[in-house]
Amino acid sequence: MSAMPIHKLHKHEKGHKEIGDERYELRLSGSGGHGVILAAVILAQAIGSDREINVVQTQSYGPEARGGASRSDMVVSREEIYYPKTMKLDLLLAFTQEACDKYARDIKPGGLLIVDSNQVTKIPIKNCYGFPFFRAAREQVGHPMAANVIALGTIAELIGIVPREALRAVVRERSPKGTEEMNLKALQVGFDMARGAKRH
Amino acid sequence: MSAMPIHKLHKHEKGHKEIGDERYELRLSGSGGHGVILAAVILAQAIGSDREINVVQTQSYGPEARGGASRSDMVVSREEIYYPKTMKLDLLLAFTQEACDKYARDIKPGGLLIVDSNQVTKIPIKNCYGFPFFRAAREQVGHPMAANVIALGTIAELIGIVPREALRAVVRERSPKGTEEMNLKALQVGFDMARGAKRH
Repeated sequence: MSAMPIHKLHKHEKGHKEIGDERYELRLSGSGGHGVILAAVILAQAIGSDREINVVQTQSYGPEARGGASRSDMVVSREEIYYPKTMKLDLLLAFTQEACDKYARDIKPGGLLIVDSNQVTKIPIKNCYGFPFFRAAREQVGHPMAANVIALGTIAELIGIVPREALRAVVRERSPKGTEEMNLKALQVGFDMARGAKRH
Repeated sequence: MSAMPIHKLHKHEKGHKEIGDERYELRLSGSGGHGVILAAVILAQAIGSDREINVVQTQSYGPEARGGASRSDMVVSREEIYYPKTMKLDLLLAFTQEACDKYARDIKPGGLLIVDSNQVTKIPIKNCYGFPFFRAAREQVGHPMAANVIALGTIAELIGIVPREALRAVVRERSPKGTEEMNLKALQVGFDMARGAKRH
């Protein structure tokens, strides 16, 4: 594991980052089949491989979680996390318009929205980056299911919350046999995509 | 989705069961590579497919979660779950002696311990069932990684918390392509194993 320091997260200035003592809250959302829960499991494990960082990653199933949208939440902090539910999101990934419509209100002032730029066209806040995750999955990775891993790479790179090598290690570990290379390629596509980030 | 009612869980009387208004708390634990988190994702989603049941499923990464053991917690209730951390476990699955030593103290009085009978030989409480999950994975499924899905089937059957069909549907959905049949077979081995349950 790299000992790369995780700096104070100056939100949305790429490359400047830190998890401070305050909480940093993320939600990944999409539809069933988009792999957002698996992406969250990977991201949380990779972030948590830094010994000084605590992560709680949660899936909820209940009335408010139903209706087509799939989501996973994460709370990240250097301090012990007493309250593991998200309150106001620092970052929301929305793969679908439905997920965006449903969860954008949970973003805190100044928080960041990341969307699939072809799926989500009604953008409710200014602080939004759009990326063609699904198109890149088809065209650059050759596998439509890889959008979740691409988004993982893009998010990690944008917010600088986890070293690339930590993420690669967990993606490799959690890839079904025979899909390791495809997923590592998808992750790299995601890393590269973050470099071309533009506000929506 | 089957409309099979989920009855009051009379703990450890097989076939009699219910999630009441009280919380029901579970933890699946083992080592990295045992697939306990994936098993928990599947179990939570299957339980949560009952519209009247709420489930929160959590992974934590932090100082207390480190040191080789891997775990995932679930809280299940008919009521809204305000506090998603587990407090006292109704059920602990321990795949390793280390996980058993570490977490058995979190079991509530009257709670149930389920262990791999070859891996865990020092049993700290009476209310324990042992099953040869790993041996069955090798010998009956032909795949050592299937122990998590076998255990899933056994737990679901023992506590009657989720209909078989709901669990099959989620296992099918979450199986990497080409492994669906193997995992459904593992699940069935788990169902069958529960029938022969004996106190350790």
